[in-house]
Amino acid sequence: MKTLITNATVLTMNPEYEVFEKGFILFENDRILAVGPTEEQPSAGYDHMLDGKNAIAMPGMVNTHTHIGMIPFRSLGDDTPDRLRRFLFPLEKACMTKDLAYHSGKYAIAEMQLAGVTTFMDMYYFEDELAQATDEMKARAILGETVIDFATCDTTEAHGGLAYAEIFIPKWLGHNLITPAIAPHAPNTNSPQALRRAADIAEKYGVPLTLHLSEMDYEIRHFQEKYGKTPVAFLNDLSILNKRLIAAHCIHVTPEDITLLQQNEVAVAHCIGANTKSAKGVAPVKAMLEAGIRVGLGTDGPSSGNTLDLFTQMRMFANFHKTHLQDRGAFPAREIVRLATMGGAEVLGLADKIGSLEPGKKADIVLVETESANMFPIFDPYAVLVYSANAGNVSEVFINGAPIVKDKRLVAQNLNALRTALASEMQEFTKQAKANEKKPVL
Amino acid sequence: MKTLITNATVLTMNPEYEVFEKGFILFENDRILAVGPTEEQPSAGYDHMLDGKNAIAMPGMVNTHTHIGMIPFRSLGDDTPDRLRRFLFPLEKACMTKDLAYHSGKYAIAEMQLAGVTTFMDMYYFEDELAQATDEMKARAILGETVIDFATCDTTEAHGGLAYAEIFIPKWLGHNLITPAIAPHAPNTNSPQALRRAADIAEKYGVPLTLHLSEMDYEIRHFQEKYGKTPVAFLNDLSILNKRLIAAHCIHVTPEDITLLQQNEVAVAHCIGANTKSAKGVAPVKAMLEAGIRVGLGTDGPSSGNTLDLFTQMRMFANFHKTHLQDRGAFPAREIVRLATMGGAEVLGLADKIGSLEPGKKADIVLVETESANMFPIFDPYAVLVYSANAGNVSEVFINGAPIVKDKRLVAQNLNALRTALASEMQEFTKQAKANEKKPVL
Ligand SMILES: [Zn+2]
Ligand SMILES: [Zn+2]
Repeated sequence: MKTLITNATVLTMNPEYEVFEKGFILFENDRILAVGPTEEQPSAGYDHMLDGKNAIAMPGMVNTHTHIGMIPFRSLGDDTPDRLRRFLFPLEKACMTKDLAYHSGKYAIAEMQLAGVTTFMDMYYFEDELAQATDEMKARAILGETVIDFATCDTTEAHGGLAYAEIFIPKWLGHNLITPAIAPHAPNTNSPQALRRAADIAEKYGVPLTLHLSEMDYEIRHFQEKYGKTPVAFLNDLSILNKRLIAAHCIHVTPEDITLLQQNEVAVAHCIGANTKSAKGVAPVKAMLEAGIRVGLGTDGPSSGNTLDLFTQMRMFANFHKTHLQDRGAFPAREIVRLATMGGAEVLGLADKIGSLEPGKKADIVLVETESANMFPIFDPYAVLVYSANAGNVSEVFINGAPIVKDKRLVAQNLNALRTALASEMQEFTKQAKANEKKPVL
Repeated sequence: MKTLITNATVLTMNPEYEVFEKGFILFENDRILAVGPTEEQPSAGYDHMLDGKNAIAMPGMVNTHTHIGMIPFRSLGDDTPDRLRRFLFPLEKACMTKDLAYHSGKYAIAEMQLAGVTTFMDMYYFEDELAQATDEMKARAILGETVIDFATCDTTEAHGGLAYAEIFIPKWLGHNLITPAIAPHAPNTNSPQALRRAADIAEKYGVPLTLHLSEMDYEIRHFQEKYGKTPVAFLNDLSILNKRLIAAHCIHVTPEDITLLQQNEVAVAHCIGANTKSAKGVAPVKAMLEAGIRVGLGTDGPSSGNTLDLFTQMRMFANFHKTHLQDRGAFPAREIVRLATMGGAEVLGLADKIGSLEPGKKADIVLVETESANMFPIFDPYAVLVYSANAGNVSEVFINGAPIVKDKRLVAQNLNALRTALASEMQEFTKQAKANEKKPVL
């Protein structure tokens, strides 16, 4: 089946940053056939025609780091010191169930799709249920089962994620949209042996490995005190740095760390919104990019980054990095749109499939309407996406050629129903969360 | 006529930060009569009833610094060094007309209203036309005619805004929603005499005075080199610092400057989004608030801040100040919501009328729906407003008791018509802007 999208400003995000001010996109089933100016669009031979109504058409956005099972935690204790260990870990242990993770996952994916995110990388528990949710939502994703040094909601022993992954990964390998993966939580929340075993599992199945890296100040102190090195150097000595690895955050990296990441072809998921909301700092992304490291944008989980859209991240990225570099000209808008699309695709090892609107690529396409008040005028569509647009401006989304969002609504799903199902599953969680909120801050 | 809004989470923003999880607001014409839990709401005696559908009800937001005539400049040369003098001043001089300012003003006000901003302070040219636009849009505003040391679009001589203001101010004095004002552009773009005369005019009519202050690095250098003092100290020596003055930005203020601002009761319009997008830095808001200075949030103009909503500013505020202070607990969400409402009202000298939902205050009320994907769950409504919500979540707006936005649409205006009128008026501007864009950066 062939679909023609016409009458849109098409940002191809190809290597030449080609833009068609009045453009079309033609795709057949899951594959883009042609992109160009409307004068060159076919006049027949397609089954569906979608009038872009002067929308901005862009590649589906890629969220390189999130935790889709964590919707229940959103807006809970946001401004609390050491929230992770005070709120998140205990509640997760006590109240996170298969069903809760599944319903949270579906809801989170719906939220991302409505915001134009077509591909994401997840790190959480119950990834088998989350894969089920992803499959039902027709999203593209890499899903990493968490490994951590204590018993969690989905395992009865420390590092139980290793055994989980050995079942989970082969089960989902070969799915056309889902890539299973393994996700040691962080270098300081796993034993060196467990980290090594996780890397071996990734190697064995040929799947990605992801972890939080150089995010916490106490993580940096821990490795300095115990080993006299940085977490990055520590992982390098464990031979864990390689092309499969997607390292989230990398805030506190040294120039030597950057060299190690580059030499070993590690990719970085940069979560500017979550990193700065928690006052952790601004990762040296300019230096990483200049070193040749692949960098993409991530929202982090809904408890850390709150929203799962990349418009928020693009705007935060612009303002934080310009201010950090004291250069308003740093990172012009189109470079930031690139990070949210092609950059993310490169990070996830999917650059041959997604990240740009080019013939032969998968039809992951987003239309951002230009009829809302914040979307006029448009001298530079990249600037409009970075500085003006928000998640609510996304009007149409296709993933792998399938219509997912139409006129700002989910096509095959009902958001109210997803929320009702999640809220109903959250009852015990909510009770305990509210009790927890009342405890005094230590 | 009495209106009852029911079934909302009411954030009163009164001094006790009272919240009614299931609450009502009753107002008669322009005046709030009662606010409370739904159990106490009247069962009869009102003319209209609005079901809040679990929305978050909050006071109308206050944008303490913008330039509503500048919609045409949005997305033009965003990442260009010295954009003000390279793009904005020349284009303003060449192409800004009465009609263009008027149509831009109406559009900008529509955008603010759709985003829950019910009161704003403007600084631009053709303020008489902008007052007309404000009146037609039924917005609450303080409108300051710009004074600057060169001939501009609305005057044939330097500092022509002084004479303009002498006609403009008395004409609009006494309007129930509009307060005319005078706005010297900045200390470094006016002669000391002109600054003094502007202050005298403000004094004579008892109206506010606003200017950009300690915003530019070259402004700081200029005063250091020429007078050996800071711009704040310079204004103090001119006896211009007083309670009427609303100083925008105040990024590069010293501790001594903060003391001067506090002692003279100057208020500050803090524009975090615009300040950081242009890499100017983060104003020391915590120190200013601790000194007892009134601080509100501002978007700056659509060319500098791009969007005119305060959700973007609240989120930017949280992330920038937490990171700047290296304290994730700094500025908990409700303090930030306060800055966007009551804080702004205090800055504009309107705290007796607006800024909170309390009996006797004006009925400037905003409902933020909680049905969109980003708005669930709600453990803390303040956190949801700051970290999750965006302009597109605003569903209902009342200004001075009048329904302005209903179901996310303007009640008495048509956004498409406003955009079409503005676009048609922009033709010559657009032509010249595009020519300007092609000039090489110097
Ligand atoms: Zn994370
Ligand atoms: Zn300004």
